[in-house]
Amino acid sequence: MNIKLNRGFSNLGSAYLFSEIAARVNAFKHENPTVKVISLGIGDVTLPLAPCVVSAMRNAAERLGTREGFVGYGDTQGLLELREAISERYSSLGARIGADEIFISDGAKSDLGNIFELFGDVTALICEPTYPVYADAALMSRKRIKILPCGAESSFLPSPDELEREPYVIFLCSPNNPTGTVLDKNSLKKWVDFALFSGSVIIFDAAYESFISGGELPRSIYEIDGAENCAIEVCSLSKMAGFTGVRCGWTVVPRACKSGGASLHSLWARRQSTKFNGASYISQIGALAALSDEGKRQNAENIAYYMENARLLGEFLEGRGIEYFGGAHAPYLWLKCPRGMDSWGFFDHLLKNAGVVGTPGAGFGASGEGFFRFSSFAHREDILEAIERMGKLRL
Amino acid sequence: MNIKLNRGFSNLGSAYLFSEIAARVNAFKHENPTVKVISLGIGDVTLPLAPCVVSAMRNAAERLGTREGFVGYGDTQGLLELREAISERYSSLGARIGADEIFISDGAKSDLGNIFELFGDVTALICEPTYPVYADAALMSRKRIKILPCGAESSFLPSPDELEREPYVIFLCSPNNPTGTVLDKNSLKKWVDFALFSGSVIIFDAAYESFISGGELPRSIYEIDGAENCAIEVCSLSKMAGFTGVRCGWTVVPRACKSGGASLHSLWARRQSTKFNGASYISQIGALAALSDEGKRQNAENIAYYMENARLLGEFLEGRGIEYFGGAHAPYLWLKCPRGMDSWGFFDHLLKNAGVVGTPGAGFGASGEGFFRFSSFAHREDILEAIERMGKLRL
Repeated sequence: MNIKLNRGFSNLGSAYLFSEIAARVNAFKHENPTVKVISLGIGDVTLPLAPCVVSAMRNAAERLGTREGFVGYGDTQGLLELREAISERYSSLGARIGADEIFISDGAKSDLGNIFELFGDVTALICEPTYPVYADAALMSRKRIKILPCGAESSFLPSPDELEREPYVIFLCSPNNPTGTVLDKNSLKKWVDFALFSGSVIIFDAAYESFISGGELPRSIYEIDGAENCAIEVCSLSKMAGFTGVRCGWTVVPRACKSGGASLHSLWARRQSTKFNGASYISQIGALAALSDEGKRQNAENIAYYMENARLLGEFLEGRGIEYFGGAHAPYLWLKCPRGMDSWGFFDHLLKNAGVVGTPGAGFGASGEGFFRFSSFAHREDILEAIERMGKLRL
Repeated sequence: MNIKLNRGFSNLGSAYLFSEIAARVNAFKHENPTVKVISLGIGDVTLPLAPCVVSAMRNAAERLGTREGFVGYGDTQGLLELREAISERYSSLGARIGADEIFISDGAKSDLGNIFELFGDVTALICEPTYPVYADAALMSRKRIKILPCGAESSFLPSPDELEREPYVIFLCSPNNPTGTVLDKNSLKKWVDFALFSGSVIIFDAAYESFISGGELPRSIYEIDGAENCAIEVCSLSKMAGFTGVRCGWTVVPRACKSGGASLHSLWARRQSTKFNGASYISQIGALAALSDEGKRQNAENIAYYMENARLLGEFLEGRGIEYFGGAHAPYLWLKCPRGMDSWGFFDHLLKNAGVVGTPGAGFGASGEGFFRFSSFAHREDILEAIERMGKLRL
């Protein structure tokens, strides 16, 4: 074969982080076959789906087996009822997003990666530490990258204060993965104002918004005036409703988002109708149930369970005098590695001496070095046992 | 916003074909509210899912509601059992494809569009008339396009005989949408040989392979020696098992596919792990059931039903002396518009005088002008009524 390949791939590191973790964990298990390893590592949920979601999806599967209930290709943009339910959800946050501005997806990751197809020669602004997909997708689509380091000195909260006023494709994730920090309304308004002044577009990753409690912190960027002119929001039912295996999410591209007179909404609609055929009907019916009053109530119990896990982990860290971020409105705790250990050093220390797995902060960008992520998505007994084991450690 | 947009979009036509059809049908319905319009237009299945698929998906949904059975993120490449079942399916065709060379997708359309991300500066070879996604996706990713017209003079079967020996990204769809024609082993071997000589890669769209009967015609490009070095195959359960709404398919990228020493398999694995999070667990469990012996038996009944529809339509066309292609190993019949009508003229004639909707061939590229597509995916009584109404027409 003599075909020119996409050179963007050669700028990527290997998918190093989780494969390196798996390799070290496997080596440990091999040497210590009797130790039960507890994972506070991966950001995957563990609680079963809400009963009303299960029942809706079971019924949807059964309908597909009947002549009257069979459904083939749907609207590529997603079931209208589901988009209307999401539109109402935005109303409840004080944001006006029409059902026609919402595109149902098979999850946030696909859209966060594919969003670069909208753009030509642009610079992606990546606020590190963060979810590695933004930078990887930018490299694959051969975009320039500007890293904005947001380390401990800024409490891991990105700010545009020092940025040159150039147009960027800005990635913001709040509540943040991995740091668990949340942009408040003032901080988010600064970003919206910066985007409007500089001609930038914001890609707002709201995948963890369900972990925000109380009414003060913004759950959507559209709670900020003017965001509809400069921001695309990507959201997901993965963490909100345990859909990591079911696969359903959505992306909002407001009709007011325009550049040089062209509508980003029209471009995204064209992209999706050409290269996507809609999310699974069964998953969409499950999503509709998850967004019903009953679904919200049932899922709130799961969120509360994870947040109690986060509280227990936070209490432990505080008790040991270990500084950490997050854990209050996010399922992640982002801790400073004790005794000056680096991220991987602390990883090895925890694994070897307590059989507990977490995620080294350095895997989320250079600004993450010296920090470490705990996820609170485990079952309660595992959280408690991890705390007990770590309690016996020198930290 | 002052962000450079992807100029590839400006080279696209609007998604004209099916929206124009819908507009004309709606106008007709508005003027003729009592006429039941029969659609032989869209390529969507209508029969309910096979019972064993429904039961597998219902059980999968229920398992997700239990602590023991809950499943979150899976392998991005897909469930191993499903990939093994597909690998065995290739074995039964005499092709050796390992489970690790198979990537489960949410359907063929996504992968056919996204496949361009593997490539740099290349020319896509599009054999028209064909499924519009290949050319649209090529334009979106700013690739050059070379159209190979494959009209009536070549019986709508593409051949590389007259092609310059340059490296192309060659799209082949067999059985073809819209023409229903099928490449036999000799014709397909010519393409594989051409690809090997010219350094090209073939993207083989096998979405309609289930409609091939008998053992002579190839259902997979990997039935041809050497294809594993130059071909990617994209397949789907949409037509095979009625999964147009459920969403599940697969793409084979053989490990032997290399260009300039780089492995296309590694690149696609990296692409998928970065920008995809796996197909829905429930859909994958449904796919596994569809590929079981019981599933194959139940789905064969549906395929036979559609093919009997095709036979009835073909019998009608023959009776009226109308030349057509396809309909024997494909759910599509591709007919020459009678009395020298052009595609849209015949569309209007059929709609206004018989209330029957088909698809104008011109919508699949210039070589489709003067031809027309019937789909056999309707319910039997609609096929019979359409034939009865058309029987009264001057054709």
